[in-house]
Amino acid sequence: MSNYETIPYKTYLDESEMPKFWYNVRADMKKKPAPLLNPATGKPMTAQELEGVFCKELVAQELDDETQLIPIPEEIRDFYKMYRPSPLVRAYCLEKQLGTPAHIYYKFEGNNTSGSHKLNSAIAQAYYAKHQGLKGVTTETGAGQWGTALSMACAYLGLDCIVFMVKVSYEQKPFRREVMRTYGARVTPSPSNTTEIGRKILADFPETDGSLGCAISEAVEYAVGHPGYRYVLGSVLNQVLLHQSVIGLETKTALDKLGVKADIVIGCAGGGSNLGGLISPFMGEKLRGEADYEFIAVEPASCPSFTRGKFAYDFCDTGCICPLAKMYTLGSRFMPSPIHAGGLRYHGMSPVLSELYDQKMMRAITVCQTDVFKAAEYFARVEGILPAPESAHAIKAAIDEALKCKETGAQKNIVFGLTGTGYFDMVAYGKYNDGNMVDYLPSDEDIAKALAQLPKV
Amino acid sequence: MSNYETIPYKTYLDESEMPKFWYNVRADMKKKPAPLLNPATGKPMTAQELEGVFCKELVAQELDDETQLIPIPEEIRDFYKMYRPSPLVRAYCLEKQLGTPAHIYYKFEGNNTSGSHKLNSAIAQAYYAKHQGLKGVTTETGAGQWGTALSMACAYLGLDCIVFMVKVSYEQKPFRREVMRTYGARVTPSPSNTTEIGRKILADFPETDGSLGCAISEAVEYAVGHPGYRYVLGSVLNQVLLHQSVIGLETKTALDKLGVKADIVIGCAGGGSNLGGLISPFMGEKLRGEADYEFIAVEPASCPSFTRGKFAYDFCDTGCICPLAKMYTLGSRFMPSPIHAGGLRYHGMSPVLSELYDQKMMRAITVCQTDVFKAAEYFARVEGILPAPESAHAIKAAIDEALKCKETGAQKNIVFGLTGTGYFDMVAYGKYNDGNMVDYLPSDEDIAKALAQLPKV
Repeated sequence: MSNYETIPYKTYLDESEMPKFWYNVRADMKKKPAPLLNPATGKPMTAQELEGVFCKELVAQELDDETQLIPIPEEIRDFYKMYRPSPLVRAYCLEKQLGTPAHIYYKFEGNNTSGSHKLNSAIAQAYYAKHQGLKGVTTETGAGQWGTALSMACAYLGLDCIVFMVKVSYEQKPFRREVMRTYGARVTPSPSNTTEIGRKILADFPETDGSLGCAISEAVEYAVGHPGYRYVLGSVLNQVLLHQSVIGLETKTALDKLGVKADIVIGCAGGGSNLGGLISPFMGEKLRGEADYEFIAVEPASCPSFTRGKFAYDFCDTGCICPLAKMYTLGSRFMPSPIHAGGLRYHGMSPVLSELYDQKMMRAITVCQTDVFKAAEYFARVEGILPAPESAHAIKAAIDEALKCKETGAQKNIVFGLTGTGYFDMVAYGKYNDGNMVDYLPSDEDIAKALAQLPKV
Repeated sequence: MSNYETIPYKTYLDESEMPKFWYNVRADMKKKPAPLLNPATGKPMTAQELEGVFCKELVAQELDDETQLIPIPEEIRDFYKMYRPSPLVRAYCLEKQLGTPAHIYYKFEGNNTSGSHKLNSAIAQAYYAKHQGLKGVTTETGAGQWGTALSMACAYLGLDCIVFMVKVSYEQKPFRREVMRTYGARVTPSPSNTTEIGRKILADFPETDGSLGCAISEAVEYAVGHPGYRYVLGSVLNQVLLHQSVIGLETKTALDKLGVKADIVIGCAGGGSNLGGLISPFMGEKLRGEADYEFIAVEPASCPSFTRGKFAYDFCDTGCICPLAKMYTLGSRFMPSPIHAGGLRYHGMSPVLSELYDQKMMRAITVCQTDVFKAAEYFARVEGILPAPESAHAIKAAIDEALKCKETGAQKNIVFGLTGTGYFDMVAYGKYNDGNMVDYLPSDEDIAKALAQLPKV
């Protein structure tokens, strides 16, 4: 039952209700995520080792498995106020069209120029870089959302921003590149010949479309080789999930205000930044035994790390220069087909989510991209928002769950994360409109081959 | 003084505070806008004559100069709830960067998939078409915002949507076309050879980039020639300003809640839909002598209807098949240069605004596109929103007013309309980033030549 006579279409928190702390779900985990390992020694990375690559304060956040609430600095909270709180939307029109008794809610993170939730962590990482007195940061970007977000944050704080953009996205999404340039970033297609590792990958795979793994290697190499620069990453890492917990915290506060208890929480999963951020405070309740929720990770059938990968130590990057992380992985040499949800093409998955998945605290499903675009178009027409292909993975799953409710008559509360908009994905939509979209599924052999190259730990 | 201890960054109204009536500023005008004339007879168009082109209920709204408050049907209000209320933003960061004592507010209409305020009237017009039992509607679109908005509204209501898109935009903005197609619209570049008038314009100006005036002619011809279709227009008309009054009404309610009295209200002006909608309730107070405001219309130097046009009866379209409207106009044969603010390329100006301008109730200024893009980039970096080139005209003017306040020390409250986002304008931004943007100004001769062809009434 709701506290409101009628639940509004959109619930915005007041600024005073916005989170003042990030929520660190690791604090609630009895079995913690496995530590990052130094590939040379096989021993856990020390703070000092990590600080060569990452900002000092971010390393502290990365390694902190105990503090449940970590204060959000005021300057970051002020920046958040420029585009947050994001609305929690009751999908009345979708429910009506589906004829489902389920109540569907989505947390919409697309109403900012980066077009996604990525800005939540970008401003935090840029802030700590600035406070450390650095000149700039380097990063990789897939679909371009993270790179755009970081460019915006760096422009705001006056930091230099160097982006290695996965080649296929660089070519398919030239407009993203221009947005980043408008914010003053330097953008290079990856693999490039500006780094040693880029040249090596190009020599080994001259026809490659690029991958997040390659781009990470290049960005790390650049940062390590240039004084005053550090590397920042938009997903996978513990610190990123921490920053993204603002999504879940706002969602939970809004649901609590409305008197609504979520039954199912759904998020698309590439590296896990959105899913991890969305579910964190709910997962905390589940881990503490205070409430139960069903969590669903939705991944593309073409890059199925949870559902067809292995839970093992692996490199975070294709160039094998980063620390090893224990995660569900398809192998750092796995090269996904050029699907259109560029943000979901990473070979691995957040160590936090991987550990929770291994503990059976959540389940994972895969969806094919043609089904995803069908759901995206349907959603656009019914709810008025043109979703990012990434986000549409969660839409597809939410629709399927709502249709199950229609069969069973269960009036479940379904909450999903609508991570962003598809305005820069019109090449893909055009292909779908023209009937030229196909599904790519990796063969068992492809996956086995990539997994055979996992490092021995 | 404000009612709030601290004015929030963003003020959202509750759904219960959203307008239930549109505000018809004509009711407050002692001297009404001149009526539309039948070009054949020179006499005012009757409702019956207009109903061959427009929906019945919209004709009634077009001709109603007396009713101040016109109820918004519930179905439209429900649709509004999907993307409204739009935020009234306090531009704290911009103020700080400028070092101005002025307080700057903007009403941001870009947080919906059409990317602009155009959806406010699109849903209204589609709704009345649907209620009249029509099959579909035809329209023109310049920058593509109006066409996208209409496509969304038609998809929602299950209406056929036929869009003639100004050729230069069709080519420069292929992604807009795909958005419209995703929403099920049929999109044709204009001038086209699918209409008689299109073929004629192509014969006379084979190299034309197209213009809103041409596209209007084609859309009207198509509607009149196909039973079950009517023509709808995204700007200029009285009915459009009426629907767009939701912008001003929400702005005024929010300012009243905050205890803030606007001193200056600024809007970009192409056909006048945004400016008219934004200022309507404020203008009403000024017309009734209840309050004073300074209103500023900002138009592109390349298409300066207020500042270099003539207040006279003219055709609304290049093909001269529409009724005559008394407005500030550059002449219906005026062909603006291919500037990047496609939405501001119309030769004329809303008759309501034209009459108010003639009564000296507002002033108008022009800005050059290079200055507009400079302001746009600055705003994007400081306030985090990448504006549409159209909207950036208002930004430029607001910044200039704020800098004047810095000189004088006046703490004015400046309110401007941020009509939309520039996500589909990255070709233009790219040109600006590359330093390849230039300004086009029509010569006195160009304007005199076009004005010489005004119809004799």
